[in-house]
Amino acid sequence: MKRLAILGSTGSIGVNTLDVIRHFPDRFEVVGLAAGMNIKLLKEQILQFRPRMVSVLNKGLSETLQKELLPSSVKVLHGIEGLIQVATHPEVDQVVSALVGAVGLIPTLSAIMTRKTIALANKESLVMAGKTLMKEARANQTLILPIDSEHSAIFQALLGQRKEKIRRLILTASGGPFLNLPLAKLPGVTVEDALNHPRWEMGKKITIDSASLMNKGLEVIEAHWLFDIPTEKIIVQIHPQSIVHSMVEFIDGSILAQMGIADMRIPISYALAFPERLHLDLPPLDLTQREGLTFLSPDPERFPCLQLAYQSIEIGETMPAVLNAANEVAVHAFLEKTIRFTEIPLLIRRVMEEHETKAVHTVEEVLKADQWAREKAKIILERGRM
Amino acid sequence: MKRLAILGSTGSIGVNTLDVIRHFPDRFEVVGLAAGMNIKLLKEQILQFRPRMVSVLNKGLSETLQKELLPSSVKVLHGIEGLIQVATHPEVDQVVSALVGAVGLIPTLSAIMTRKTIALANKESLVMAGKTLMKEARANQTLILPIDSEHSAIFQALLGQRKEKIRRLILTASGGPFLNLPLAKLPGVTVEDALNHPRWEMGKKITIDSASLMNKGLEVIEAHWLFDIPTEKIIVQIHPQSIVHSMVEFIDGSILAQMGIADMRIPISYALAFPERLHLDLPPLDLTQREGLTFLSPDPERFPCLQLAYQSIEIGETMPAVLNAANEVAVHAFLEKTIRFTEIPLLIRRVMEEHETKAVHTVEEVLKADQWAREKAKIILERGRM
Repeated sequence: MKRLAILGSTGSIGVNTLDVIRHFPDRFEVVGLAAGMNIKLLKEQILQFRPRMVSVLNKGLSETLQKELLPSSVKVLHGIEGLIQVATHPEVDQVVSALVGAVGLIPTLSAIMTRKTIALANKESLVMAGKTLMKEARANQTLILPIDSEHSAIFQALLGQRKEKIRRLILTASGGPFLNLPLAKLPGVTVEDALNHPRWEMGKKITIDSASLMNKGLEVIEAHWLFDIPTEKIIVQIHPQSIVHSMVEFIDGSILAQMGIADMRIPISYALAFPERLHLDLPPLDLTQREGLTFLSPDPERFPCLQLAYQSIEIGETMPAVLNAANEVAVHAFLEKTIRFTEIPLLIRRVMEEHETKAVHTVEEVLKADQWAREKAKIILERGRM
Repeated sequence: MKRLAILGSTGSIGVNTLDVIRHFPDRFEVVGLAAGMNIKLLKEQILQFRPRMVSVLNKGLSETLQKELLPSSVKVLHGIEGLIQVATHPEVDQVVSALVGAVGLIPTLSAIMTRKTIALANKESLVMAGKTLMKEARANQTLILPIDSEHSAIFQALLGQRKEKIRRLILTASGGPFLNLPLAKLPGVTVEDALNHPRWEMGKKITIDSASLMNKGLEVIEAHWLFDIPTEKIIVQIHPQSIVHSMVEFIDGSILAQMGIADMRIPISYALAFPERLHLDLPPLDLTQREGLTFLSPDPERFPCLQLAYQSIEIGETMPAVLNAANEVAVHAFLEKTIRFTEIPLLIRRVMEEHETKAVHTVEEVLKADQWAREKAKIILERGRM
């Protein structure tokens, strides 16, 4: 029996994780859940999965939830302290790290340091502090299993292979809803247009990141840390059908690829059950019923965010955290309809340009850079000139 | 230094194998070569690779070659005895089994029993006597590494995976030159039409087998034995671009595929160097420069040979050997322009119908069935009524 804590249980990854767990009651037990503000859904999850403790965003929500749950023995925590308690509870074997954004960093690091196996969906924690996280993972012999379909694909393709024989990692990207839009129309796209992702059902932030390809940029950085591969050896290809989830090319010209239908339960179940595979009751991928699989190189003019991500990791140290923070502010502003879609990369670039990169020795330094970038981004937004 | 014997050195696989070896003189040493009648090419290979012994088809050819090589210390053997001596020589570590057809069986079995690592291209030996070969391989702890691009793909995709988690093996087939020909025109195709394979450079026999999909049928049987997977779990998909060399589907819906350019040196080098990979100086596969990858189910009316192969392995015992022998006679007759392309499956079916299946305990029983099928096929051919 594997005892799980799920950070971000009411998000898209969290809900899919619980859907997998529901079908394997003999394998998995839910010890802890953590959510943000959606206490309605969290309450349903508590009643169904009976965790020992849960955590929510703040004190007010925790009190409301506690009242609604009476009488109940479930412990209700809140805030970053609550997240850490759920992530490090001694009865937890594996932590599903599926919070969205920078908030996932400290809980994920805490779980690594208490030797929980990590199923990682919160790519921002690796983007911000990959060096620290991987160092701690090695020191604590903590296994980090990727949930992102791309990294799960690469992880699977690398099994039994030797790292020094890798020529390139090829991350695939759907290209999002604006792949074929005339460039001149890009400044005019609406939030609704951007949220209309052709292939995957996801949360809002990651859907916008998919439309801008920033998501792929963050994934390049994530892959760099997860697989210890220099970013020059990690390339991105647009693959509009989202069947091939990513590929590994070896020095002999051989490419290993993982494919599947676009259903997050496949990589989630793999990260939960590794090295096993679970029998999921999903429709099989029938390639004879699909359109042809095509691949193209991303157009840098259409997707400037991808280039910014490469630049940030090339500079390294605090810069990827700054990229990530500026992107979070920019995406939020776009969702609030304060800026245009095409202003997202402009804002990020501006923040990066104003950042004085500092060496990273501790997570506090990363969080300081993150904080600085958010404030700087907001100042630039308020000035209204990017 | 790996010491090699190459059976079938003047054929397409043999020539490609020597081309790989040529680039890695520090890794490989050629101890023995065996060819059929092409002593001109064999002589060149001898002068370049300086093997200790070679074998050719018959005494006459061996005497001719010996004269041409004078003065030389290379030992020239001939016939099945010569093949066995080359395959089992004590100084050989690994045998590349790349003879075409049934003649490969006994030398391959001899190599297995003398614990040579096998790089197997001669699929007919597994088709004829898979049970015996695999039993001996287990008993002698002999590693059999596939050279066929399809089986190499599956072998690579299975590394680090658990066999009981496999849902299906998906063997891909180019579909050959007649994939889109109107069915009514199939009886009229010429030998030249059939030899015009769209994707791979291969020997004549295998090129005809590719056009009829018998090659894929033999590969289904080969995969069944190599990977110990029931044939119900092995399916064939036509993939005209020949980029995806084959796939493994797991119970969670995940598919692992191996891809590459259509160059036999990739799977050959993998079988030679396993578990290493060699740095081959080949053009990389750039999927962004390719047409879309498509897949379709084979039409049983167009490709009756595939069904015959499945039937033969379902019946089992001597029947696959009979299928293989009848096919060799039929392909030979087609190449000699004695029968039409569409008469190949008719002849095979007729021979299979007349065969009384016998249990297989020894290789001699297999060879007897093989002999019987060849004679029966010739009788039917002479009668001219299929």
